[in-house]
Amino acid sequence: MKIALDAMGGDFAPQAAVAGAVLAAQRLAGKAQVVLIGTEAEVRPLLQQYGPAAAALELVFSTQVIEMGEHPAKAFQQKQDSSIAVGYRMLHSGEIDAFCSAGNTGAMLVGAMFTVRPVAGVLRPAIANFVPKLAGGYGILVDAGANADCKPEMLEQFGELGSLYAQYVLGIARPKVGLMSLGEEEGKGSAVTQAAHQLFKVNPHVHFIGNIEGRDLFNDKADVIVCDGFVGNVMLKMAESMYDIMVQRNLNDEFFEKVNYETIGGSPILGINDNAIIGHGVSTPLAICNMLMQGYQMAHSGIVDQIKDSFKS
Amino acid sequence: MKIALDAMGGDFAPQAAVAGAVLAAQRLAGKAQVVLIGTEAEVRPLLQQYGPAAAALELVFSTQVIEMGEHPAKAFQQKQDSSIAVGYRMLHSGEIDAFCSAGNTGAMLVGAMFTVRPVAGVLRPAIANFVPKLAGGYGILVDAGANADCKPEMLEQFGELGSLYAQYVLGIARPKVGLMSLGEEEGKGSAVTQAAHQLFKVNPHVHFIGNIEGRDLFNDKADVIVCDGFVGNVMLKMAESMYDIMVQRNLNDEFFEKVNYETIGGSPILGINDNAIIGHGVSTPLAICNMLMQGYQMAHSGIVDQIKDSFKS
Repeated sequence: MKIALDAMGGDFAPQAAVAGAVLAAQRLAGKAQVVLIGTEAEVRPLLQQYGPAAAALELVFSTQVIEMGEHPAKAFQQKQDSSIAVGYRMLHSGEIDAFCSAGNTGAMLVGAMFTVRPVAGVLRPAIANFVPKLAGGYGILVDAGANADCKPEMLEQFGELGSLYAQYVLGIARPKVGLMSLGEEEGKGSAVTQAAHQLFKVNPHVHFIGNIEGRDLFNDKADVIVCDGFVGNVMLKMAESMYDIMVQRNLNDEFFEKVNYETIGGSPILGINDNAIIGHGVSTPLAICNMLMQGYQMAHSGIVDQIKDSFKS
Repeated sequence: MKIALDAMGGDFAPQAAVAGAVLAAQRLAGKAQVVLIGTEAEVRPLLQQYGPAAAALELVFSTQVIEMGEHPAKAFQQKQDSSIAVGYRMLHSGEIDAFCSAGNTGAMLVGAMFTVRPVAGVLRPAIANFVPKLAGGYGILVDAGANADCKPEMLEQFGELGSLYAQYVLGIARPKVGLMSLGEEEGKGSAVTQAAHQLFKVNPHVHFIGNIEGRDLFNDKADVIVCDGFVGNVMLKMAESMYDIMVQRNLNDEFFEKVNYETIGGSPILGINDNAIIGHGVSTPLAICNMLMQGYQMAHSGIVDQIKDSFKS
């Protein structure tokens, strides 16, 4: 099994990416091969720092880099030899089993949509994000930001995708699916969430527990939190900022430490034909390593086949 | 000046309401008269506990109560002698200058819409909520939950209403208005927020600073945070739950203490012809007292006249 990393992605690339890949290669030794995709002139000198530990990495050299600020679709099309474009081609051809990048999020989504493509039957792929639970373990929030405007049927599918992920990757037997709204009552919500609520009620594939509220993100009510990408993005950025404020104010706590993106690693793209994970721009080596571990878990679980199976009409 | 309280509203009413009213009457002595509206048989015995302090309160007796779980519109119509309906009639007739209740939120909105009515030119009144800022003071978030589905023009007006409130009640000279979105760039957002962004850009009445993100709720970027009621409600409930988790985990902090609803008091309804404030269902006496103080500040500032003036076309 091969888990690949975009060595050029992230605010601290390639240093942080290479360091994270070396860490992950140690942890995955005997289970999976870590593949590093990047510019030879930048990656090779860095690897020398790690001596024999770096020898475990497989290297693939690309010549271009999609920068963080570039227009995603344009850059992806014009830079066919960028680390992201090369990674997606290898993923699509089956040379690698998962592709991770802390680089340009938009370009990662473009590659997901146009190189790897959505699973047949999936209306719109979504980004999933892990949410630590007070009772222990993690829940999953879908969508974390890929789709700002959603139709009720999209929200329904986010619930199905999240439920499959919770089951096959997180190992939750019968994941509770909650629909984010502004009140628990069925009649509360926007026009879209109210319609989605009705779809969920008769959906035999998910264990729908009804509406949940902003206060239920971290509690035990739902394992799968369904919302549009606008709401999901706002919530996650807000949680992250509250964690940052706590750190600044010297409030140390085991639970809130799990809200830190570093512990979580990255955000898988669900509903596409292969395993792709997007990392946080400011990813440290630890975050990169955890993202690669996630990539391994996803690939190992066979989640994509489960999704394909489930969406076969 | 008369500031009235629904003695029957809130999960701990009438006890907490009466206790809060007594507190507020002491603080407002010489400035404003606190009026208590409620059921005589329930309110009178409670007042005896407070001895002479209770004598400062003006009493208005109503015979009915709208319960927390009741259907707002139906209950408001059928219970014409409920404390909420009586309060709104007194507000509309000018007998009182502000009306506060920690009772049924929906019924408070019904009274606002049908007894007091929206200011001419305002498309939809909104609920405002105060947000503590890391740099000190408070910002204001509009809408906190009255309108789940918004048109771009509504968001634009929320910015105008919030800006007037920040200016005339919070005393912020040139309030910075930020539009909540999932990215800072102009092109980021939902179809509605993208259109609202364009309206704000050419609006001469507000100091628009562009898109803000979930991470900007507590920082100094914007004094007025504009979002639809769905997003606002989710954010505020999430902030509240994170505060609750911190309390449970013995994390004490001066800044996060300000996120506590108790300190804030209540949420004014903006864009109606009088001063009405909705309190949290679980309001304690301190929260009730702070809500009444807010009611006084609103009435004293003449904010409603400012809004009427500003929306006169």
